[in-house]
Amino acid sequence: MGTKSRTNCFYALFFLLVGFQDSVQGRLLLINKPDPNDPAASARWLVSQNSWGVLNTISSDLGGAPFGNVVSFSDGLPGKGSGIPYFYLTTLDPTAKNALQDQRSSFTISEYPLGTCGKKDPENPSCAKITLTGKLKVLKENSKEAEIAKSALFVKHPEMRGWPKGHNFQFFKLDIEDIFLINWFGGPKPLTVDQYLHYKVIGLVDSL
Amino acid sequence: MGTKSRTNCFYALFFLLVGFQDSVQGRLLLINKPDPNDPAASARWLVSQNSWGVLNTISSDLGGAPFGNVVSFSDGLPGKGSGIPYFYLTTLDPTAKNALQDQRSSFTISEYPLGTCGKKDPENPSCAKITLTGKLKVLKENSKEAEIAKSALFVKHPEMRGWPKGHNFQFFKLDIEDIFLINWFGGPKPLTVDQYLHYKVIGLVDSL
Repeated sequence: MGTKSRTNCFYALFFLLVGFQDSVQGRLLLINKPDPNDPAASARWLVSQNSWGVLNTISSDLGGAPFGNVVSFSDGLPGKGSGIPYFYLTTLDPTAKNALQDQRSSFTISEYPLGTCGKKDPENPSCAKITLTGKLKVLKENSKEAEIAKSALFVKHPEMRGWPKGHNFQFFKLDIEDIFLINWFGGPKPLTVDQYLHYKVIGLVDSL
Repeated sequence: MGTKSRTNCFYALFFLLVGFQDSVQGRLLLINKPDPNDPAASARWLVSQNSWGVLNTISSDLGGAPFGNVVSFSDGLPGKGSGIPYFYLTTLDPTAKNALQDQRSSFTISEYPLGTCGKKDPENPSCAKITLTGKLKVLKENSKEAEIAKSALFVKHPEMRGWPKGHNFQFFKLDIEDIFLINWFGGPKPLTVDQYLHYKVIGLVDSL
């Protein structure tokens, strides 16, 4: 095999690999998966690495049923996440409408779409998952936190900048009250909201 | 480039591609994405193509909050799905415990992890999402429907066969009462449970 041919094949493999990571996994940074014995690191990693999840509210239209909805989110600029999930929602969608009536909410994320679970089943406890439960709150327009949410979201979801003005999109946050984390066998990991929020995310970054 | 080298490179590219689809996307079949103007086809495609989603219940432990949880599911043997999502859950996990107290539930799936949304944001309405709302019911042990659920789940999730007997896993189904489908601009698509359940899934399959 000539040097040029070998190089061509190498590049084809490389770009195929990188292309797949980009489009399928939607990851912005390459960050090592933390040790499952460190629940705070594990939880913050799941939240910082994912770009979407399922946001749950109570639907009065559907007899008080729990209503899950696929949404994009961001907890901060890449490598500088706060652990607090921010959302950009319109009241044309049931989730924002529900939250304005009843703030009880949860937000659920899986490790599976990141591609780091290998051949494990998505329900295998060593393929991590997290549910943050709390109150879904709309942020006051032009407030400092609305600006933080905007920067966090628009960097990870550049398409949002162009979403229709007339659709009344607003910034929301989840005020976390409880954390359910499974990242290994043996049941949920004990993790307080304080431990989660005060974890230094800088320890997770290896490629900035 | 010699024939052997070219063949080697081809195989490397091929297996990398197939391997990624297997491990990251968890898809069992290659099925074309239906026309968004056919809501029943679109909904059944999303349900048959995905292997996991977020199952939502009401948590009495968390003050009646809606509680989402990542779970695996199956709606049938590949190419023979019924549209009804079946689950294999243990009461060691809050979701099954919640459902046995209050059956109100929803199940949420995104097109995003299938890799067919391209560069679109996961919250872009043309990247499809579905929420099936209804009642989460445990299936009677050894009943005909429990056998159907078992075959459906164990084919798509072979790892489940080996899950610990002592954990009291049981088969559950979602009895669908309402369908929320977004697969394009312009709000949710009108789709009744009847239209959804009676759609002939055979029309979707192009590679069996």
